[in-house]
Amino acid sequence: MNSPKDKVKESTDSEIGLVSPRIFEYKKRFVMTHGELPSFCIKYETYGKLNKEGTNAILVCHALTGDHHVAGIDKENKRKGWWDHAVGPGKAIDTDKYFVICSNCLGACQGSTGPTSINPLTGEPYGMSFPDLSIKDMVCAQKHLLDHLKINSLYSVVGGSMGGMQALQWVVEFPTFVESAIIIAATPQHSAQTIAFNEVGRTSIKRDLHWNNGDYDNNSRPEAGLAVARMMAHITYLSDKVMSEKFGREQMIANDEQDEDLDKNQFKVESYLHYQGLKFVDRFDANTYLKLTKALDRFDLVGDLGLDHNLINVSAKIMVVGFTSDWLYTPAQNRRIAESLQRLSKNASYLEIDHDYGHDSFLLKSYDFLRLINLFLGGENQDEITRLDEKKSTRVNNRSEVNRVNNRSEVKKEADLKVISDWVKKGEKVLDLGCGRGILLEHLRETKNVNGLGVDYDSNKAAACISRGVDVYQGDIRNALSMLEDNSFDWVVFSRMVEELPEPGQIILDALRVGKRVAVSFVNHGYWRNRLHFSKYGSRITNDVYRQNWQKSYPRNHLSVKEFESFCVSLKVQEKSFRVGRKVFHRGNWRTECSLLPNLRAGLAIYELVGD
Amino acid sequence: MNSPKDKVKESTDSEIGLVSPRIFEYKKRFVMTHGELPSFCIKYETYGKLNKEGTNAILVCHALTGDHHVAGIDKENKRKGWWDHAVGPGKAIDTDKYFVICSNCLGACQGSTGPTSINPLTGEPYGMSFPDLSIKDMVCAQKHLLDHLKINSLYSVVGGSMGGMQALQWVVEFPTFVESAIIIAATPQHSAQTIAFNEVGRTSIKRDLHWNNGDYDNNSRPEAGLAVARMMAHITYLSDKVMSEKFGREQMIANDEQDEDLDKNQFKVESYLHYQGLKFVDRFDANTYLKLTKALDRFDLVGDLGLDHNLINVSAKIMVVGFTSDWLYTPAQNRRIAESLQRLSKNASYLEIDHDYGHDSFLLKSYDFLRLINLFLGGENQDEITRLDEKKSTRVNNRSEVNRVNNRSEVKKEADLKVISDWVKKGEKVLDLGCGRGILLEHLRETKNVNGLGVDYDSNKAAACISRGVDVYQGDIRNALSMLEDNSFDWVVFSRMVEELPEPGQIILDALRVGKRVAVSFVNHGYWRNRLHFSKYGSRITNDVYRQNWQKSYPRNHLSVKEFESFCVSLKVQEKSFRVGRKVFHRGNWRTECSLLPNLRAGLAIYELVGD
Repeated sequence: MNSPKDKVKESTDSEIGLVSPRIFEYKKRFVMTHGELPSFCIKYETYGKLNKEGTNAILVCHALTGDHHVAGIDKENKRKGWWDHAVGPGKAIDTDKYFVICSNCLGACQGSTGPTSINPLTGEPYGMSFPDLSIKDMVCAQKHLLDHLKINSLYSVVGGSMGGMQALQWVVEFPTFVESAIIIAATPQHSAQTIAFNEVGRTSIKRDLHWNNGDYDNNSRPEAGLAVARMMAHITYLSDKVMSEKFGREQMIANDEQDEDLDKNQFKVESYLHYQGLKFVDRFDANTYLKLTKALDRFDLVGDLGLDHNLINVSAKIMVVGFTSDWLYTPAQNRRIAESLQRLSKNASYLEIDHDYGHDSFLLKSYDFLRLINLFLGGENQDEITRLDEKKSTRVNNRSEVNRVNNRSEVKKEADLKVISDWVKKGEKVLDLGCGRGILLEHLRETKNVNGLGVDYDSNKAAACISRGVDVYQGDIRNALSMLEDNSFDWVVFSRMVEELPEPGQIILDALRVGKRVAVSFVNHGYWRNRLHFSKYGSRITNDVYRQNWQKSYPRNHLSVKEFESFCVSLKVQEKSFRVGRKVFHRGNWRTECSLLPNLRAGLAIYELVGD
Repeated sequence: MNSPKDKVKESTDSEIGLVSPRIFEYKKRFVMTHGELPSFCIKYETYGKLNKEGTNAILVCHALTGDHHVAGIDKENKRKGWWDHAVGPGKAIDTDKYFVICSNCLGACQGSTGPTSINPLTGEPYGMSFPDLSIKDMVCAQKHLLDHLKINSLYSVVGGSMGGMQALQWVVEFPTFVESAIIIAATPQHSAQTIAFNEVGRTSIKRDLHWNNGDYDNNSRPEAGLAVARMMAHITYLSDKVMSEKFGREQMIANDEQDEDLDKNQFKVESYLHYQGLKFVDRFDANTYLKLTKALDRFDLVGDLGLDHNLINVSAKIMVVGFTSDWLYTPAQNRRIAESLQRLSKNASYLEIDHDYGHDSFLLKSYDFLRLINLFLGGENQDEITRLDEKKSTRVNNRSEVNRVNNRSEVKKEADLKVISDWVKKGEKVLDLGCGRGILLEHLRETKNVNGLGVDYDSNKAAACISRGVDVYQGDIRNALSMLEDNSFDWVVFSRMVEELPEPGQIILDALRVGKRVAVSFVNHGYWRNRLHFSKYGSRITNDVYRQNWQKSYPRNHLSVKEFESFCVSLKVQEKSFRVGRKVFHRGNWRTECSLLPNLRAGLAIYELVGD
């Protein structure tokens, strides 16, 4: 059997081969957010083929200093595309299936019209007279390119960092044009700290005497200022940890031929930064840097009216991906986009990749990340298939005691889900807290056209949800509840989850705020076998429900039918407005229902709480 | 009764009144780490009076761009000292009790000899010919000042940021001269990221055409470069959160008279940074900035031989204080200093203040922080006194049922500690995991001259340890164990703590690595009343031991005597080398010992595990 990791190719050789960029010219006046252009050019590349129905186009948007050359080998300079490991035949964005387009954004300096371009009205470079840019301008220019390519809809738009902001702007600006979007390492607005960093970079450029208010020529560019800006920005793209691992405090060996500005015995990280600065100056333009960073700082989908107001018309299915170590566009900033969409009942997921590299993680080969893109775009979840295969083979070879226990617990896994899915009506909205691999929500979607949102902390389980097409919020149950509106779900489900929560009473109350009905299933700790065992031995029982002995356990918050009933009574006493609805109790086999003496006889309890 | 907060004065008016700096001249050749000076001056201030025994001197060390004017009102410019709220009569560093000295460090530009000073050998300013500085040079120059002031020992040396590095260098360089040190928001070495930020600042200065290899005069200083360096550094002094709270994305109102370099409608945070940059250029010198930041980057008490090697001779009692939101010198970097000292069995504590402000938190009025300094320097812990008073009054007015329960639980609090403190021999080393307010370790120190270290996650409890003079590591038990050497303690104590741990078996094994003996006390869940209650009602019991009902509980990992015995057997099976030593069982009242049927009859169990 192949390892699941083989599924998403990560070859170092590009299978796309040689590619050449093309130029699209828009010859009409183009009105921008803060000005206009008499015309513009966009440099772009495409990979794969548009199908007859025109339903397989994916637009990839690049980051601040990126370009149109996303994959393959550039025919002219033999340079490999910046995301070649993600885009290609059989790769995460599979060019055998999809027609992929990437363009240098408007206002940039890699071939599209920007500050370095000649203004046709004056015959001189635009320089700082280039209109102040917005992310919306970039997206609208891309739309003209797509029109030119006769693309009538996008299967997906994908981008990281500034590309993620473009992807977000796409689904806002052209809601019916875009079927789905993957927004990676982005933010709905820059924080004060990010603006501050950008302003330092801009000040460094503007205070460079060569900048000359933006009026410089190739022989006298503000290279020192631009290099400093890049050096600083580069720090924000990496995590402290990865910098320490890469460079630590190692020093260069003294070299008399070094740049005289630089110390002898400088630290390697210093030398690396200088190299980054110099390399950047070669390929980038200072005025462009000023315009693009300002566009980023001004980008603000929150504004005075709030993010929800600005995302209200989104109809695309969206996956937002943050990276744990990204301190430029933090996980919280990414999550905020998904939270708003989820609050608005859009099809949206938030996933968090545990990666050390910082903001630039999205540019690296990371199996978990590439798999997620692939799954979201409809790839098969090889991990999940392997898992299911293993389960099947366990059932088939059901011979040993171990297998019997596994099998029994597989049956148990779904016992409460059957009851809860019976309770849910067609077309209702369900929030599944601790959703695991999304089995319940997938089932409800397929059988009852239910619109569901799952919450789980575990990244593999969240990825399994994505592979099932189930929207998921990867994170803490309390965070998820706190960001959702009152009565915004028909059902909030805790399927054997409350045992893991601290102060569960308050969390259930929060769930009653968010959901019209709450379903709580739990293992009844008051079950007679537990009592018998405890009263006889004075120790915890271990079986397929209580699996770990003391030394391997995680702290748990066991409860019984009696305790849950007392809790409900205590809420009544506090005059919380709800009532206990249906109750279902299963005996120790988790199959047979029982109603008499449930605290003694039931192994599993399922309660419906109804908000008034 | 006064509120505890009154104890540490935080008046906005300085009670020190007007102060004037003085100058100390060292007229001899001063050999430095990387060069020498023919002589030097140090500008300094003092507050309070040196007592006859000369035992009350406290040296305060300033941060990168600070100065000697720590408290009071400068007679000349009426400026208030930078730490006036912390230093003064009745304040955290109480000038009624202590003689406080603060000097502008060697190499700085506020009155002490540095790059802006005239080199007496040439009659010209030193500029970049000033020797490369080290933190050690600063400390050695301060030592000459103290000798001049006839101070024969320091009661304490206190400093934040670069001042914290100086305090650390003090205890390394002059171990017998310094009784104690408070090292705040510091690091034993710069991380690659911090070096990188500093190098961007230096590059900004050096690439400023006015820098001229350091040879500039007052009319043509590299102000642009220095301002950019400061703007960037300033971002690293604040947390993202506080910047967002202070400025958000608010914009300035357009103003035609603004600096023409600046955009109209700029963000407030941009304007703030520009102001910081300009203000800094007025008071600071570019070459000095280059020299000081290089001294910080080069400071390295880890080096090739490791921190433990370099701290081996420290004899001062040390408190290291980190701030949760400090991302320049992170909590982990601060903790590393304390961990090394604790590994070396020095008297050292690590405390972490939960503060939002970032690195600059140490400059702000923060009650928790100021109280901690006060407690460490021997102030009374008003919180703790209040708490004890309340307990006493509860005992005196022991009438109601509630009071009886409280009283009973107070007795219980100390039941296992009595047994464990009987086991510990005179002069042994004890690690108390989950040490609470340090009662056991204080008792052991006073009765058995025990050298102890407590570990607790709770900041108030850790502060209570400081007030008892008990060394404490504020943090996670697993982190504490992982950083300690094999067999470095005679005892590791878990006093009713294992119930809160995940996979406690592994943690106890780790404790057996660190300690020669491990004492584990726990509430025996197999106690007959628990069994009876559970078998009868099928729900958890609530009493003074199990205080919370289900809905308010935190997950716990209850265990019984039987389960602990099984765990010990399982270790034997795994051939872990240890044996079970003494066992003590108390009945339900936690007073009377019992040995027969402990799993049924004991309320409290205390085990000794002995490593082989």
